Amino acid sequence: MVQSKRLAAGITRTNREMADGRTIRYYDTALQGRTAVDTRVVEEQPTIGELRLDPLVNEWVAMAAHRQGRIFLPPKALCPLCPTRVDLVTEIPDSDYEVVVFDNRSPSLRPPDTEWALPIPAGPDTKLGSAAGKCEVICFTPEHGKSFKDLSPSRVRVLLEAWVDRTQELSLEPYIEHIAPFENRGEEIGVTLSHPHGQIYAYSYIPPRVEKMLAVAKLYKDSMGKVLFDEVVAREIRDEERIIARNDRWIAFVPYASRYPFEIHVTPLNPVADLAQLTEQDRDEFPSIALEVMRRLDGVFGIEMAYIAAWHQAPVRVGRDLLRLHWQITSVRRAPGKLKYLAGSESAMGAFIMDMRPEQSAAQLREVKL
Amino acid sequence: MVQSKRLAAGITRTNREMADGRTIRYYDTALQGRTAVDTRVVEEQPTIGELRLDPLVNEWVAMAAHRQGRIFLPPKALCPLCPTRVDLVTEIPDSDYEVVVFDNRSPSLRPPDTEWALPIPAGPDTKLGSAAGKCEVICFTPEHGKSFKDLSPSRVRVLLEAWVDRTQELSLEPYIEHIAPFENRGEEIGVTLSHPHGQIYAYSYIPPRVEKMLAVAKLYKDSMGKVLFDEVVAREIRDEERIIARNDRWIAFVPYASRYPFEIHVTPLNPVADLAQLTEQDRDEFPSIALEVMRRLDGVFGIEMAYIAAWHQAPVRVGRDLLRLHWQITSVRRAPGKLKYLAGSESAMGAFIMDMRPEQSAAQLREVKL
Repeated sequence: MVQSKRLAAGITRTNREMADGRTIRYYDTALQGRTAVDTRVVEEQPTIGELRLDPLVNEWVAMAAHRQGRIFLPPKALCPLCPTRVDLVTEIPDSDYEVVVFDNRSPSLRPPDTEWALPIPAGPDTKLGSAAGKCEVICFTPEHGKSFKDLSPSRVRVLLEAWVDRTQELSLEPYIEHIAPFENRGEEIGVTLSHPHGQIYAYSYIPPRVEKMLAVAKLYKDSMGKVLFDEVVAREIRDEERIIARNDRWIAFVPYASRYPFEIHVTPLNPVADLAQLTEQDRDEFPSIALEVMRRLDGVFGIEMAYIAAWHQAPVRVGRDLLRLHWQITSVRRAPGKLKYLAGSESAMGAFIMDMRPEQSAAQLREVKL
Repeated sequence: MVQSKRLAAGITRTNREMADGRTIRYYDTALQGRTAVDTRVVEEQPTIGELRLDPLVNEWVAMAAHRQGRIFLPPKALCPLCPTRVDLVTEIPDSDYEVVVFDNRSPSLRPPDTEWALPIPAGPDTKLGSAAGKCEVICFTPEHGKSFKDLSPSRVRVLLEAWVDRTQELSLEPYIEHIAPFENRGEEIGVTLSHPHGQIYAYSYIPPRVEKMLAVAKLYKDSMGKVLFDEVVAREIRDEERIIARNDRWIAFVPYASRYPFEIHVTPLNPVADLAQLTEQDRDEFPSIALEVMRRLDGVFGIEMAYIAAWHQAPVRVGRDLLRLHWQITSVRRAPGKLKYLAGSESAMGAFIMDMRPEQSAAQLREVKL
């Protein structure tokens, strides 16, 4: 059965079942007959992983030992994210698509089998829990050789609507506490598939960095009566020198205390908790700033920059009035032949050392001719 | 003037001033006439960096913009960590050495010029502070092509005594709150000098990861009345399956909730707060387990493993009864041709995904024939 749903901006979502029971969702600018069938033989699916508590810092670590055998940088002729062709059957049964989201075949986190509850952290004697959650793959375009920055504005609009839709649906799952859509790009950071795509991680727990942001935002609200992120944006607007792009609804800046040679935060001027709360006007104005930022980033050295672009949202159930939606892009590239590595200070101590002033990278990003 | 000091185990330290005013310390098994003079022309030293507060997580980021031009993987003929020869004047004026520690020429953190105080974190309006602290380089051997695992037990004993000595001296500085000796090894993690060496970072603030460990250990002590790290070690001894080496005074294990494909914690069985508190017997028994662990690590795939080996100590002034000394070795190598990368989940969300079970890597480490 083909299920279609009308979303905003005339975008339609069509859900289809894959051969092994996973779901694939087509996001289209016009209603398409998405009837192609996944004809592949069903392979055994990995079992659920473990969630273990690192007692020294009270943080969950997901164990996904089944992922060791993942495919590594296949050529276009074998790419599982291209549309299915006569000579290649892929993850996407149809012969064309705009944006698709499907359940990851080797997920780090999986929906729990039974009624789900996170064990209570209590030091080294905490029993392990299930690595519950959900991992999805989102393909930005059927064109294998393209990048995010090459997408048309209308394609970025579809992509944003897909992120919004997934945030809305995943927020309804009782075992999901936090949703993080992100894109990893570049072999330098370990990307195993070069086809333009991202991932959506929906965690059964609040990830450590979000938990820290939440604790700090709560302290700030309690003592200052204000939302910390709004004050941070106000400071960036006041300082001006680290702003690299803006339009009527969005602003992009290199944060005052960046941790990476190139770090950009993109945030709506009308603050919201998550993607689902974005107004339609905000959504329509996102493609222009998103494409400008990505083109500036690739323009700095005239090479494709390795980056992680992650949506920070408020968690599903807590801190909805404390944290704000922003898109954080970080690149470890500090010069054409040089990367920043997280070594002893960053990795073992968590203490970041920046080799570039944020004002310098902001200037370099602004100077790029588009 | 030559200043020598007698340390434990018959080891002598001799301090010398370098041409630009920095200090170099020779650690020798017998008193040597360390009179060689640094004849180099003095180059301008970098100015002190900035410390900026990342308000979203209340963490300090050190800005060291002067470090961009560092030398990158020089060949042996140009190595600044080799002893000075007729044809090469290096950072070490003498023509031979055992272990030396000298002030880093491009430090991320520097002693403050004036009376020093960390600004109080108060959100986005916190004014920047000085990137205060001290960065030192420690050379393990004059032999350029060697590794830690090739050192003799007596050399490792000297190395440990140098770490102890630096911890003791740096702890006396009023602007230093935390001391972290570590070694980065391998081009895969960005090492710029292949000569066997480590670094000592002495921070004017408690690094974020240590702060988190401290907060969790305090919670645990308050509720359970015990030191968390001791309970963690007790659990590892009880579980047994992740222990990879032990002797009368030390134990080495892969922790229950490892974050890296190969992660090893080495800790004295008689728990202490920092290196300076190690008994002489503990110090004498360290070389055998340290060398065993490093040989096991390189033996797993028969190749030199990239790793970070960092000493976790209690901070200088706080949490002395809450945190315990341990040596944490982490490797991102998960197979001969494969590295683990910190991508979206780890880097943006702080949520670690492990592709290997800790019990598996412990078994691989144990199976190495020494």
